[in-house]
Amino acid sequence: MRALIKSIIVVSTLVTLFANTAVAHDDSDRSEIKRVLSAYEKALNASNVEGVVALYANDSVFMPPNSQPFVGIEAVRSAYTGSFKNIDLDVEFMFDEIVQVSPTWAFVRTRSEGTITLVATGAKVGPEVAGQELFVLQKQSDGNWKIARYAFSSTNPARQ
Amino acid sequence: MRALIKSIIVVSTLVTLFANTAVAHDDSDRSEIKRVLSAYEKALNASNVEGVVALYANDSVFMPPNSQPFVGIEAVRSAYTGSFKNIDLDVEFMFDEIVQVSPTWAFVRTRSEGTITLVATGAKVGPEVAGQELFVLQKQSDGNWKIARYAFSSTNPARQ
Repeated sequence: MRALIKSIIVVSTLVTLFANTAVAHDDSDRSEIKRVLSAYEKALNASNVEGVVALYANDSVFMPPNSQPFVGIEAVRSAYTGSFKNIDLDVEFMFDEIVQVSPTWAFVRTRSEGTITLVATGAKVGPEVAGQELFVLQKQSDGNWKIARYAFSSTNPARQ
Repeated sequence: MRALIKSIIVVSTLVTLFANTAVAHDDSDRSEIKRVLSAYEKALNASNVEGVVALYANDSVFMPPNSQPFVGIEAVRSAYTGSFKNIDLDVEFMFDEIVQVSPTWAFVRTRSEGTITLVATGAKVGPEVAGQELFVLQKQSDGNWKIARYAFSSTNPARQ
């Protein structure tokens, strides 16, 4: 009988553990993911390379249009360094969805609106910026969510 | 003692179950994911709308550049229907990575190369097509992997 009780305790502990893993998908991870992407928006608008890089995982991949993908944190750093030398962004991201698919992985779709200014001349570039973004985020071993993959494109009509 | 044995059996069954879930990430899912994306390539090159649509999940989102995202299978169908009326693709996808993040979710990065021909005139469009793709795939309740989210952009330099 004592063994049976033990077995029930062991099994219920296991069940509780796995149940908690499932529940952990929820509110705190979701808020943390939103916080990371808000911090990304802020760092992007401040042309803050290190602020941006701190939000990317070491093995991340950044996939901006009209470029080969930037693979790994050093490549990501150089991409933003180059970009911020040329353009000054003022954009806002709006969340379409945040989908956590495991305790340590999630993807997020956003759309963005704003303006691009040329650093050299101070001139605004083209029409208002309008984009769609697909982020894959991974919870790191230290518990912080970071951007693992990021692809985006313009939703403005193609230039003829 | 019999209860203890029972408890051991229950616990090891549970452990085996979860271990199998972890192992299931591997070869068969990976081959199946590759098969789905090869089928996508084939259907795309054949301008086969229903062939493409069959590879998308019902609640999928297709995010081509220069368009708002197409949300849901009917919107996805209309996007490819419109596209295939105008252009004839001949592209090849090359896998950069296949990352399964849970028993039922994975993401895939590819690059693509090929040509676009205008249906109306038979003229080739612009330079060779070169793209980068980010697919999120979900294993459906029937066990089939399908495209759940798909964003891409050109890796060719921006037109000036």
